[in-house]
Amino acid sequence: MALIVHKYGGTSMGSTERIRNVARRVAKWHAAGHQMVVVPSAMSGETNRLIALAKEIQPQPDGRELDMIAATGEQVSVGLLAMALKAQGVDAVSYAGWQVPVRTDDAYTKARIESIDDTRVRVDLAAGKVVVITGFQGVDAEGNITTLGRGGSDTSAVAVAAALRAEECLIYTDVDGVYTTDPRIVPEARRLPGITFEEMLEMASLGSKVLQIRSVEFAGKYKVKTRVLSSLTPPDIPLAEEAVSGTLITFEEDKSMEQAVISGIAFNRDEAKITVLNVPDRPGIAYQILGPVADANIDVDMIIQNTGNQGLTDFSFTVHRNEYQKAIEVLEGKVKSGIQAGAIQGDPKIAKVSVVGIGMRSHVGIASLMFRTLSEEGINIQMISTSEIKISVVIEDKYMELAVRALHKAFGLEQA
Amino acid sequence: MALIVHKYGGTSMGSTERIRNVARRVAKWHAAGHQMVVVPSAMSGETNRLIALAKEIQPQPDGRELDMIAATGEQVSVGLLAMALKAQGVDAVSYAGWQVPVRTDDAYTKARIESIDDTRVRVDLAAGKVVVITGFQGVDAEGNITTLGRGGSDTSAVAVAAALRAEECLIYTDVDGVYTTDPRIVPEARRLPGITFEEMLEMASLGSKVLQIRSVEFAGKYKVKTRVLSSLTPPDIPLAEEAVSGTLITFEEDKSMEQAVISGIAFNRDEAKITVLNVPDRPGIAYQILGPVADANIDVDMIIQNTGNQGLTDFSFTVHRNEYQKAIEVLEGKVKSGIQAGAIQGDPKIAKVSVVGIGMRSHVGIASLMFRTLSEEGINIQMISTSEIKISVVIEDKYMELAVRALHKAFGLEQA
Repeated sequence: MALIVHKYGGTSMGSTERIRNVARRVAKWHAAGHQMVVVPSAMSGETNRLIALAKEIQPQPDGRELDMIAATGEQVSVGLLAMALKAQGVDAVSYAGWQVPVRTDDAYTKARIESIDDTRVRVDLAAGKVVVITGFQGVDAEGNITTLGRGGSDTSAVAVAAALRAEECLIYTDVDGVYTTDPRIVPEARRLPGITFEEMLEMASLGSKVLQIRSVEFAGKYKVKTRVLSSLTPPDIPLAEEAVSGTLITFEEDKSMEQAVISGIAFNRDEAKITVLNVPDRPGIAYQILGPVADANIDVDMIIQNTGNQGLTDFSFTVHRNEYQKAIEVLEGKVKSGIQAGAIQGDPKIAKVSVVGIGMRSHVGIASLMFRTLSEEGINIQMISTSEIKISVVIEDKYMELAVRALHKAFGLEQA
Repeated sequence: MALIVHKYGGTSMGSTERIRNVARRVAKWHAAGHQMVVVPSAMSGETNRLIALAKEIQPQPDGRELDMIAATGEQVSVGLLAMALKAQGVDAVSYAGWQVPVRTDDAYTKARIESIDDTRVRVDLAAGKVVVITGFQGVDAEGNITTLGRGGSDTSAVAVAAALRAEECLIYTDVDGVYTTDPRIVPEARRLPGITFEEMLEMASLGSKVLQIRSVEFAGKYKVKTRVLSSLTPPDIPLAEEAVSGTLITFEEDKSMEQAVISGIAFNRDEAKITVLNVPDRPGIAYQILGPVADANIDVDMIIQNTGNQGLTDFSFTVHRNEYQKAIEVLEGKVKSGIQAGAIQGDPKIAKVSVVGIGMRSHVGIASLMFRTLSEEGINIQMISTSEIKISVVIEDKYMELAVRALHKAFGLEQA
């Protein structure tokens, strides 16, 4: 008997029929003697509906009021799930974030969890109740409702699991785990039974959007054993089978077996590249370029600056494709003349492809195998960026699928 | 400058366009220097949608969880209205019931307000903000969300007005006030500029469904000047005109002018009549008949028992037409044999028509004028029940409109 946290996404909660299935699955775990806490998302489409309504009223919605509105989606979900459990004879009780309470800072629409009081929940668990807690939301020190931003329910679930020192946090999604790459691009892609949270961080941020990135950080920080598994299996499959399915996110300390060199190939097509040409190669130039970009609330991903030549250098970075135009305007408007740069060049038609693996720390030759593979396919590399456990390249976007397939094969990922 | 509470129903909040109009109306009052608190209902249809969803999951929904779900409708409304005010340049802040807090007992789905803390609201009002508070809901001593039952937003508004000692509580609805009777039946029906809260109680419970009955009780108990007025006028009509429109619910103590004898003719067709024939005329018989009916959660309205004859009497009462069959079953099953009654007779095709007026206290002849009028129209009276300020009769339902028109004319209600 253990304390287990389940998280269900919007698709799993998408209809009353599906909610009944979630309840059956939770009831199965409860019947096996586990203490159960469940964190559901809003019913699919509901958060979008609420935000659209708010934007009809106020195109740039007030953050506090937007959170007041958006938080209701999960509140409906917890009530419905608690009812579905009761209807199946399992005692259950629902809580909104403020009732637990889940304390956050006051950064509306993107709040961070500061603490979770487990008193009330533990009393219910001791009484044999299933506790259903809203994902995505909390309450600030002044008693205002806050939300954690898109995908925040994953973070809520992991944070609740951390606060309760749960045995495991199971994230039920519409995929059955983390793959070596996207099976839609590489049919031979293989599900990973386990992955370290550091690899998961790189995979998540690079495009394998299985888990919200912040939830993985949380899992890493508090050492919460987190499993990503399918919500599409029949709710009454044997628990022993379900409990070892999906992909378990572990910590290096737990690693007992030899780790594969590379865990997977991540990619995305959401970014655009911007290069400031012939920038004077002097201290402070990076800040002079990126400061105004950050001030305009534009997130920057890769940043590349090569050694200068004749006192001049080229400075490149990538931004989300939606913010490409805005970034160009900022640079043309404020930055270019201020630093006497040559010209601003940009390209929104790029893709980023990365190989990720904790094993590459101790293996040489990963980069060269990557670059040789791309070269053999005739794919030009525009930018390169590396970290301890990943190598990312920017290429022309039309080559993305080809690059992913070639790399997946070159690193032998299709083999078990 | 005064503190004013506005309440808007679901129809007024039915679309983002309508919410903008509500904001314009509130902004007009705010611009005139008033401190404004606004209590909106859920957007029309939303509460029904939520309850239907809950009943799909659990046909007899758990009260606590149903309230958790149903309360979200108003939470969305307050957020949207606060945004609409801000979009028009009026500073505003929204609160759910638990944030104020509005304390209630723990009778889920039909909770009663116990107290309202005005601290937080007063701080905002002093800062010039419009405060938008959810109707329909509160929080119990344990921090669980409760709702007040259907139409509870009227009660919330009046209770908030009482707690803040507001100058006036304006209930905006889709009718422009309280009428002498339903204009759809009597075209000459006249809007009453004022009505006492006691008359309003009788009018409301008898079918002129303008205000939730409990809100009127609240208004009476705490002497809250409450005005029912139209939300369909253009939001920018002159405030001086709007402020005296509709119907003001006053208190006897405030009465300065001569009160009309009769204020209006109320009626309904929702009831069914049940008679238990030849009941032994002995103590306890009323309880033996109505106890099992109450135990079956069937509400009883009129109750008539005449003096017995030869130790036997007939006992009649009315129930809601929807509960007619259930009541008959209870009587046939448990009651009839237990008290050796003769037979159970029932008739769902009845209507109740009432004349209501605080003035009838000091005027004789009201009953006789009523009975003579019905007699002249050839309408048979089946049951009669009286209180200090109303006389109700039960008649065959096909005569209802005729009776209402004849009485409206006989009591001279069409004249100003």
